[in-house]
Amino acid sequence: MNILEMCDPEVAKVPVGATAEQAIRAMLDRHVGAVAVTDENHRVAGIFTERDVLRRLALGDHDPRNVSVREVMTTPVEMATRATTASEALATMVERHYRHLPIVDDDGRLLGMLSIRNLLQAQIDTLTSQLDQARSVVL
Amino acid sequence: MNILEMCDPEVAKVPVGATAEQAIRAMLDRHVGAVAVTDENHRVAGIFTERDVLRRLALGDHDPRNVSVREVMTTPVEMATRATTASEALATMVERHYRHLPIVDDDGRLLGMLSIRNLLQAQIDTLTSQLDQARSVVL
Repeated sequence: MNILEMCDPEVAKVPVGATAEQAIRAMLDRHVGAVAVTDENHRVAGIFTERDVLRRLALGDHDPRNVSVREVMTTPVEMATRATTASEALATMVERHYRHLPIVDDDGRLLGMLSIRNLLQAQIDTLTSQLDQARSVVL
Repeated sequence: MNILEMCDPEVAKVPVGATAEQAIRAMLDRHVGAVAVTDENHRVAGIFTERDVLRRLALGDHDPRNVSVREVMTTPVEMATRATTASEALATMVERHYRHLPIVDDDGRLLGMLSIRNLLQAQIDTLTSQLDQARSVVL
């Protein structure tokens, strides 16, 4: 199972020209903690997360209705590709205190959004099936 | 392993008289997504999460410096006790779309804060040790 298969089926994203308010509404509507911010070529320009809301909006003087997501997103973004392993992705996320990692193709175009929760869930699935297999050998 | 042992060692909390800004700073400083809000008897009065910031502050007209956390926290709170099992806690969190569950004693006093991530990590630890055990039987 590659990391793209671990992601939620639909990735939450907003165009780089969106307002911060639109990005926040996308997070609330989709029950996710981060949205990818993409340019007109579908390439990842940044990522906007709950942490960014806390750090740059809730405690600042910006009004999310009038500020562009571009101004408050996190960039440059740490990214993964289809070739990144789950352990590499987890190591990056733990080390950098990230909970999300966009997965992109060779041209930087968005393929999916991997969350720490996706990784933990995949690890549980793998361990469970390994355990079933080991037990079936015992029986 | 009971659910209290799965929690992070120190629980992030603010008194009910704190401002929303203080609660947000506590979340940022401690790298957590929720703080417990406690009254003068150390009882849980509510919980204040990143979601509350998005829903009630970032898109509203409140200034976190002038609003009390009491006005923007989530209450009543779904809570767990030492007797709640990990599966019961997970079921509640998934069903209600919560990522955190305060654990309280019989008087409602705060003992710990359980996160979905704590639960997933504990499940991984359990499965890993079961797998080691099953494999040692095979060898």
